[in-house]
Amino acid sequence: MAGTVSNELRRDVLEANLRIPRAGLATLTWGNVSGVDREAGVFVIKPSGVSYDALGADDLVVVSLADGSVVEGRLRPSTDTETHRSLYLAFPSIGGVTHTHSTHAVAFAQARRPIPVLGTTHADTFNGPVPVTAALTPEQCAKHYEYNTGQVIVDLLEGDDTRAGEVPGALVAHHGPFTWGTDATKSLEHAIICEAVAEMALHTIALGAVEPPQHLLDRHFTRKHGPDAYYGNPGAA
Amino acid sequence: MAGTVSNELRRDVLEANLRIPRAGLATLTWGNVSGVDREAGVFVIKPSGVSYDALGADDLVVVSLADGSVVEGRLRPSTDTETHRSLYLAFPSIGGVTHTHSTHAVAFAQARRPIPVLGTTHADTFNGPVPVTAALTPEQCAKHYEYNTGQVIVDLLEGDDTRAGEVPGALVAHHGPFTWGTDATKSLEHAIICEAVAEMALHTIALGAVEPPQHLLDRHFTRKHGPDAYYGNPGAA
Amino acid sequence: MAGTVSNELRRDVLEANLRIPRAGLATLTWGNVSGVDREAGVFVIKPSGVSYDALGADDLVVVSLADGSVVEGRLRPSTDTETHRSLYLAFPSIGGVTHTHSTHAVAFAQARRPIPVLGTTHADTFNGPVPVTAALTPEQCAKHYEYNTGQVIVDLLEGDDTRAGEVPGALVAHHGPFTWGTDATKSLEHAIICEAVAEMALHTIALGAVEPPQHLLDRHFTRKHGPDAYYGNPGAA
Amino acid sequence: MAGTVSNELRRDVLEANLRIPRAGLATLTWGNVSGVDREAGVFVIKPSGVSYDALGADDLVVVSLADGSVVEGRLRPSTDTETHRSLYLAFPSIGGVTHTHSTHAVAFAQARRPIPVLGTTHADTFNGPVPVTAALTPEQCAKHYEYNTGQVIVDLLEGDDTRAGEVPGALVAHHGPFTWGTDATKSLEHAIICEAVAEMALHTIALGAVEPPQHLLDRHFTRKHGPDAYYGNPGAA
Repeated sequence: MAGTVSNELRRDVLEANLRIPRAGLATLTWGNVSGVDREAGVFVIKPSGVSYDALGADDLVVVSLADGSVVEGRLRPSTDTETHRSLYLAFPSIGGVTHTHSTHAVAFAQARRPIPVLGTTHADTFNGPVPVTAALTPEQCAKHYEYNTGQVIVDLLEGDDTRAGEVPGALVAHHGPFTWGTDATKSLEHAIICEAVAEMALHTIALGAVEPPQHLLDRHFTRKHGPDAYYGNPGAA
Repeated sequence: MAGTVSNELRRDVLEANLRIPRAGLATLTWGNVSGVDREAGVFVIKPSGVSYDALGADDLVVVSLADGSVVEGRLRPSTDTETHRSLYLAFPSIGGVTHTHSTHAVAFAQARRPIPVLGTTHADTFNGPVPVTAALTPEQCAKHYEYNTGQVIVDLLEGDDTRAGEVPGALVAHHGPFTWGTDATKSLEHAIICEAVAEMALHTIALGAVEPPQHLLDRHFTRKHGPDAYYGNPGAA
Repeated sequence: MAGTVSNELRRDVLEANLRIPRAGLATLTWGNVSGVDREAGVFVIKPSGVSYDALGADDLVVVSLADGSVVEGRLRPSTDTETHRSLYLAFPSIGGVTHTHSTHAVAFAQARRPIPVLGTTHADTFNGPVPVTAALTPEQCAKHYEYNTGQVIVDLLEGDDTRAGEVPGALVAHHGPFTWGTDATKSLEHAIICEAVAEMALHTIALGAVEPPQHLLDRHFTRKHGPDAYYGNPGAA
Repeated sequence: MAGTVSNELRRDVLEANLRIPRAGLATLTWGNVSGVDREAGVFVIKPSGVSYDALGADDLVVVSLADGSVVEGRLRPSTDTETHRSLYLAFPSIGGVTHTHSTHAVAFAQARRPIPVLGTTHADTFNGPVPVTAALTPEQCAKHYEYNTGQVIVDLLEGDDTRAGEVPGALVAHHGPFTWGTDATKSLEHAIICEAVAEMALHTIALGAVEPPQHLLDRHFTRKHGPDAYYGNPGAA
């Protein structure tokens, strides 16, 4: 059946959502993670306004990639569902999306400043600054607001799937961070890293930021990404 | 019996008080939540100076809305009881009140600056800045001090119940935040949000705050409030 | 026997020490609380360099008020023992002393700035700024260094026991906070409050501090202290 | 057998690694501790990219001091292994090395500012500022990058083992802190202290830092280190 997703996908999406409060990224019920099954043409997402304590795998909502309709689930999906959908449609290589209102990333979004690359912590994951979108226009707010929130990110990256892979996150102006990855877990980890580097950048700016040499940043990104990556233990927890 | 409140109200007020330390809003015993039963003409509030660890439903104090006398309970009510009472009397639509000394909201109160609207996190709950009162006069401090602490909030909002619904909180100058809502739980959640947006605003100001477009803020407030609200799952936890 | 202290005093001092890490005031083993038995002429204090996890009532050390010698206990007392002793000798009304290296209070001590009174959170406990001592001279560092660390606090307060009661804490320049109270528990609570108001003051200064009216501060101090105090529930937890 | 290490060393290294997240120094899997057995010519280190939750003593990797080859273990060692090795080779007195991306120490590293000595908290452990290295050159990044990351620290200290003992840590420019000690546990504790004093320094600088008198700093360092040390209880937990 087209709308059915694997238990594994449900479990991954549930677990990634539960990690939002554990990682200190959530206030109340704010924040949501989704994961996509491109063959089935659907994605699984947190329901709207449900507390993490009460969240079970059965509460997750399965949504059609094609038109945003609910395919499975008895609750309304997150109000941010259409933002997730627009990102999945624009960037074929991504498998998971996370949205939070984490404190320091939101501060950069509210100041409409990108999170600058100031060191290897950032360069290990983001091959460039975490960019910030334009503010949505009155028209973009009036109709299909949530879909347009994704669209301003897509426009910012000029719809370039490769860029989305190199810098897996963006700040929506006056709103907050959206991050993505090859699956739900990766998108959540990028949200954690986005918040960590935003906090480090804020303190660095207070001390007087100094631009790092590009060859150092390149070295860090390529040791974790691409054909010559040598970080980690494939298969280990 | 007029002074008796339902077990449900007691449980809600107890639970909201216990969430103060869990949400990181409390130092020692600071902070208190109350909930009102308007038909019975009473409200239920935390006793004064009791630690959250030791707090049980039986320790809560039931207070008369009309004159502030203790209707039920063997402990003294919170010293802030009269502040709660003045807010209930001025704003008929509110059902719960919370007071904390949460760090960042207090910093704005001490600097006598409103918490500005800098993004959607704020606009989702507060339809405008969280305002700050005038400092209490020597006369207001000398007599009925706690009642007057509520009264300066009432004066700030010109006693307007609609405004109290649109911006469910205020900072008392050199003191701290008071928030309210349709019930005790909602007032507590507004205290959590007030602290979260104060922290975000502090960091945004350090980075250089930029005013957000009004149409974005309006969109966020109306998607959670009013006749066209579409956020959340009514009835879900 | 003169050197024996009650189990109750031991338990209070142990419990107050264990609250240091729980209140977020400790890094590693830094921080210590003592409590005095003036009739017995001794005080009970944490041993030096023992981790809070491993600390039991039997590890506490009983020290002579008169000469600082160990009266009971198989471990060395805290290196700060002589500082505690000099405070007990100078201020007859105090029953407990706490020393921590809590982050924000240390920042004020390192900047050699008093923690200013910016609101009611501060005025509820400290009837004036938390003052900062002069730096110790080479002579004061060379000999009886720890005793002299207490002495610079005594000098700062001109040995005035009433002042010590009104502002139960001080910052030692380039070192950190020492607080005291009528017993060990109270001294620990003053350390918690000292750190809380230091953090609030730091953020308030960043936002632009405004001096609060004196009549407001007076009102708060007197509602918790002195003959007309009406805060709290005597006897309740 | 040359490559075999004692169970005690394994346990110490494991325990020190597990303390990284508990001390709030870790985001995700970032951070690693190693401990050396100089007689056996090997050191034990955390595997690359394994989460702390899943880490067991058997996952640790034993690496040759002489050439960096894996002597024992089925996982790849930390990508930072060569940095640890270069420090062990340069400084014969050290027995453990810790690397983290703790927030405030990284901020100083990113601003390329040493952590200044502003008080006794710092002077208790570090007999001078925690220095910051030069940025690595393109050549140092291109080949043997991780080994060179250690080498810039060695160069900064002019290969002086005594200096490494007096200031047991350094910041690598645009990267983060490396600390060391006589064993794995000590190196980890120095990482905790490095982060604590970095946070205190950041706040002190915001308030206006004042240089402390050298005689005070000397007094603190010597009461914990060297022949006249009198801090702590040897043998106690």
